[in-house]
Amino acid sequence: MTQALPVPAPGTVFGDIEIRVRYAETDRMGLLHHANYLVYFEQGRIELLRSMGRTYKDVEDEGYLLVLARIEVKYKRPARYDDVLTLRTIVERTTGVRIEHRYELYCEYKLLAEGSSTLACIDREGNPQALPTYLANRTASL
Amino acid sequence: MTQALPVPAPGTVFGDIEIRVRYAETDRMGLLHHANYLVYFEQGRIELLRSMGRTYKDVEDEGYLLVLARIEVKYKRPARYDDVLTLRTIVERTTGVRIEHRYELYCEYKLLAEGSSTLACIDREGNPQALPTYLANRTASL
Amino acid sequence: MTQALPVPAPGTVFGDIEIRVRYAETDRMGLLHHANYLVYFEQGRIELLRSMGRTYKDVEDEGYLLVLARIEVKYKRPARYDDVLTLRTIVERTTGVRIEHRYELYCEYKLLAEGSSTLACIDREGNPQALPTYLANRTASL
Amino acid sequence: MTQALPVPAPGTVFGDIEIRVRYAETDRMGLLHHANYLVYFEQGRIELLRSMGRTYKDVEDEGYLLVLARIEVKYKRPARYDDVLTLRTIVERTTGVRIEHRYELYCEYKLLAEGSSTLACIDREGNPQALPTYLANRTASL
Repeated sequence: MTQALPVPAPGTVFGDIEIRVRYAETDRMGLLHHANYLVYFEQGRIELLRSMGRTYKDVEDEGYLLVLARIEVKYKRPARYDDVLTLRTIVERTTGVRIEHRYELYCEYKLLAEGSSTLACIDREGNPQALPTYLANRTASL
Repeated sequence: MTQALPVPAPGTVFGDIEIRVRYAETDRMGLLHHANYLVYFEQGRIELLRSMGRTYKDVEDEGYLLVLARIEVKYKRPARYDDVLTLRTIVERTTGVRIEHRYELYCEYKLLAEGSSTLACIDREGNPQALPTYLANRTASL
Repeated sequence: MTQALPVPAPGTVFGDIEIRVRYAETDRMGLLHHANYLVYFEQGRIELLRSMGRTYKDVEDEGYLLVLARIEVKYKRPARYDDVLTLRTIVERTTGVRIEHRYELYCEYKLLAEGSSTLACIDREGNPQALPTYLANRTASL
Repeated sequence: MTQALPVPAPGTVFGDIEIRVRYAETDRMGLLHHANYLVYFEQGRIELLRSMGRTYKDVEDEGYLLVLARIEVKYKRPARYDDVLTLRTIVERTTGVRIEHRYELYCEYKLLAEGSSTLACIDREGNPQALPTYLANRTASL
């Protein structure tokens, strides 16, 4: 039997990356500390953007700061030190000012965690601004 | 005009702690990195438990591991380096196996973020187990 | 028998702060992860500066970035989750461009770790610059 | 002109890994926070061990905990968000109870930082113990 991650619906904008759990990311329970899932999700967004030809560094250096407005994580199975995880990051929806992502974190084809988040765009003074055109109003963007 | 945090409903189990944003917790935007809110919330739960006469260390050493099943954060205003924040941690509900918390993070009486989480109890092998009696089925527990 | 931390030599510029080890700062061994000692030392420097009437935030906002040129830590005894540690931060020497600190980390009057570091001053472009006068060439400064 | 990292002396036990600087690892200055160098060095040691056919997870699960006795870092040039760094980890010396490493961190063939550390071996109770034979008394071990 071949094992594989689920195949997303046609047209879905997504990307898969591998992340190995670092020792420093574990805690006294011997598990990946739950706050680090947010760091992994951030890496997933950044690598998805890179795979589409942009770097988040450029976006930010152009004055578009993408900040989290909301994030949710559902933890189903623990990740452990040295596990090699696969993180799938999916663009759920983009509007003129917001980007919604979903996340699926796997280890050996088992789903460990799911997440969702909403990014908002601000300027250097912290005021809301429209997303750059190459990110806004697309099904397939960040 | 006196400024103060909102007063919770009578009987609410809650605790307030102060946390100063560390330099290492900021990011390239100059703001508190969003993953660190989860670290603060954890500290809020732990200090609330301590204020009720228990330490989480004891709970864990007795073999009850409290792991996150779900967490959500809504980010409203950014926190900055060196800000002194007030974190309110509230017990929303406890059952025989789960504890639900809410979180409110303030800076100078302004609400920066809100959160909610569900803790589940597992044993050292990672299997679900009932909460210790002093934590379970109470409105006013962890 | 009264227990106390050692008394520094007269004229020594130093400050003591208390830090409780957070759950997220532990690792799979159940101990405070060694990288977090650097975060604590940074907090020690910042609070020492504050006790002298300046905030590092102000220093940095005036364009003086203090970056580490060197740091060393000697780990003697482990720190554990929920331990309340006392960190002593000592100004060892300042020149026109550098500040040297020493660190002593205690738990219940036992020495857990010692450290030393050298800070250099740079501008926003990363070029070396002289320390602000209120920090430079003093035995008793940062 | 071809650029390359320096070639170590014949017989040197070393390994090179690539690490991309994460957003969460930067700080208010926009640079890789200095504490994270220790996390990278740890990853370097772990991957060097893996390249020799062992995992640190196995070593630890067999009851040999390798803890830092000392670490030093010399920071020469800053690393920035999204930089792809090359970390070289070198076994300097092993005795029956200790392992000494050196570290060189590069970005685009420029040396950003150098480090050195000493690991000691303890058991689960925190008492010193001899290294496992496959790690001890070898020039070419961890």
